[in-house]
Amino acid sequence: MFRINENYLKLGGSYLFSTVGRKAREFQAQHPEVEVISLGIGDVTEPLCPAVIKALHEAVEEMGHAESFHGYAPDLGYVWLRECIAKNDYAARGARITPDEIFVSDGAKSDAGAIQELFSLDARIAVCDPVYPVYVDSNVMAGRTGAFDAETGRYGGVLYMPCRAENGFSPSLPEEAPDVIYLCYPNNPTGMGISKEKLQNWVDYANSSGAVILYDAAYEAYITGDLPHSIYECDGAESCAIELRSFSKNAGFTGTRLGFTVIPKALVRGGVSLHDLWARRHGTRYNGAPYIVQKAGMAVYSEEGKAQIREQIGIYQKNARLIREGLSGAGYTVYGGVDAPYIWLKTPGNMSSWDFFDLLLNQAGVVGTPGSGFGPSGEGYFRLTAFGSPANTEKAVKRIQSL
Amino acid sequence: MFRINENYLKLGGSYLFSTVGRKAREFQAQHPEVEVISLGIGDVTEPLCPAVIKALHEAVEEMGHAESFHGYAPDLGYVWLRECIAKNDYAARGARITPDEIFVSDGAKSDAGAIQELFSLDARIAVCDPVYPVYVDSNVMAGRTGAFDAETGRYGGVLYMPCRAENGFSPSLPEEAPDVIYLCYPNNPTGMGISKEKLQNWVDYANSSGAVILYDAAYEAYITGDLPHSIYECDGAESCAIELRSFSKNAGFTGTRLGFTVIPKALVRGGVSLHDLWARRHGTRYNGAPYIVQKAGMAVYSEEGKAQIREQIGIYQKNARLIREGLSGAGYTVYGGVDAPYIWLKTPGNMSSWDFFDLLLNQAGVVGTPGSGFGPSGEGYFRLTAFGSPANTEKAVKRIQSL
Repeated sequence: MFRINENYLKLGGSYLFSTVGRKAREFQAQHPEVEVISLGIGDVTEPLCPAVIKALHEAVEEMGHAESFHGYAPDLGYVWLRECIAKNDYAARGARITPDEIFVSDGAKSDAGAIQELFSLDARIAVCDPVYPVYVDSNVMAGRTGAFDAETGRYGGVLYMPCRAENGFSPSLPEEAPDVIYLCYPNNPTGMGISKEKLQNWVDYANSSGAVILYDAAYEAYITGDLPHSIYECDGAESCAIELRSFSKNAGFTGTRLGFTVIPKALVRGGVSLHDLWARRHGTRYNGAPYIVQKAGMAVYSEEGKAQIREQIGIYQKNARLIREGLSGAGYTVYGGVDAPYIWLKTPGNMSSWDFFDLLLNQAGVVGTPGSGFGPSGEGYFRLTAFGSPANTEKAVKRIQSL
Repeated sequence: MFRINENYLKLGGSYLFSTVGRKAREFQAQHPEVEVISLGIGDVTEPLCPAVIKALHEAVEEMGHAESFHGYAPDLGYVWLRECIAKNDYAARGARITPDEIFVSDGAKSDAGAIQELFSLDARIAVCDPVYPVYVDSNVMAGRTGAFDAETGRYGGVLYMPCRAENGFSPSLPEEAPDVIYLCYPNNPTGMGISKEKLQNWVDYANSSGAVILYDAAYEAYITGDLPHSIYECDGAESCAIELRSFSKNAGFTGTRLGFTVIPKALVRGGVSLHDLWARRHGTRYNGAPYIVQKAGMAVYSEEGKAQIREQIGIYQKNARLIREGLSGAGYTVYGGVDAPYIWLKTPGNMSSWDFFDLLLNQAGVVGTPGSGFGPSGEGYFRLTAFGSPANTEKAVKRIQSL
């Protein structure tokens, strides 16, 4: 008799951002006169930059003629894109990553969710708390966790590493040894960065314990200080770390879809190369990112592309500063937003995260994301993103200030 | 201690089409003077049609301006595309599928590989033999099968339903009851269609046994006879069947990536809606197909798009006829190719499929796909695709004829 994968039933009703979106739509329907401003889901608002648009048009034109038409892409992605990534994102930072260690995909979310398929079902995962929900939910769905405990807000079998103001949002090395450690820096949702020294500690810890680090560097373009952009800037990371990267937040590809995952060939466990396993998965379950989108990705690395994207990131960084300083000036305690597009604020008067969400939506028409949606240690915190338009961001800050 | 997902080690060395591609590249490198013609992997050669190119350019232009820019797509895909699919692919054929039962994705391969995640790990799967490798391999990787038995060419725990000339490539209903039945019609790799009456038998069987049918209709556009284009043309299919569809082979999207999966809300097992589970998976693990690609998909359904695509399919259908008649005239026994872009031929003199692959590559410079790569009952057969250019197809047929 057919049985469903009952692990799905352990999950909450819906994905966090689906719930946030639904609540915002419901409010808007009831209050059509309010101009709701979304600083909730981390979605960009600036258009694709001219260099990318030009590359897209050219690639579309190629697809219209038999002699320049492209069918299935190579399993790992086009080599010209992978060479470009290896040079710009790694060699330029002193990290030795070769093009054949790079797997092009349709985005970091897909890869962040799929990467757990390479681990045994009894692998013990450790996550920062609060955390990007995909890391935990994908493991829940695969059956790698116990049930959800409503009292603690935790799934059984998962090692949660609390990140709160008390520890500077920087977790200690876990006492129980995990098999897999998910790290995201600059961090989503707290907006905090990590120093090279601290990241090196994680790498050393993983190399000595045999754990594998999944390093999500989707927000590296927002780093302003002297922080590592890639985990492979640390010594020995190639034997313990997988890195996830995205074009969504640096180049505005949230609706264009492109990302990549790096698995160094030196990452071997139990005599098996994780690179080979991921290659097998790519070959069997994926058919590559669209040719036109990979061409668009190339344009991100052109000289004009780099300049245009730097300018766009500057807009969002200015938004972040505006939110940070505006709310701080209004008496809020705010974190993050310096090396990341996220501002993490303490809810006023110890309000719960969802109560503050409702307050902000109802009284200021501003959508944010409740910190508790990212994990129990996010309770009492709230995330705002810097991805609104400058005008909307300014308006939102003023509305919150006058609450 | 970190352990990998050891189910991956049960798999053969590489995905079938990766092996075929590698062998072809190696031959080409050794024989640069030979003009190798690929009728192997089912990749299209005709360019995207003008209506699609126009839609792509327009969508690219929209992405370049803040007021028409699109970020993250809705979880299920844009409603205008889903409405268009519901109307053209279902309502027009008398099938009642609503837009919110349609999930837009980056292609049928991704969905065919992912759909098994909804089933319990002890679900028993049944597949036609020969079969599109993704169905089996994705279940092997998930741990739903036993080891590979080199002697029988089968994975333990999987119900193989042999399709050979002896039974008209039409499997009988399985004696042991499976939980999940993978069906693909028009069939890849045999190129054979299924009558509505026979498909209705499968639907009735699934409804009476509680099994779920995964129906892959990626090749429906090639149907010439009076055969069902969708399983939902059969009575009661909405309570037992999931349908996978693709834009790759009708509109040439192999390198553009678009597909969709239909899960009717009436498909409930153990009190749980499979539609809800898939929606949860989409929300958690996927971020949608690119806006520009979904716009391109819309153009496929425009009046000019339909006409242009019909013409393109006509080219491939002509190729299929050329191969079928050409090889038949040269004494080969050929099947399929009437309602599908695949020709399935009996290897001459009882050669093994891989021996014939080598012979064809070495002596005719033509790449095909060994039937045994699709399963043990494919041994002694060989697949040729109709997706080459007309000139190349003609050349390939002449070369094979003169072997």
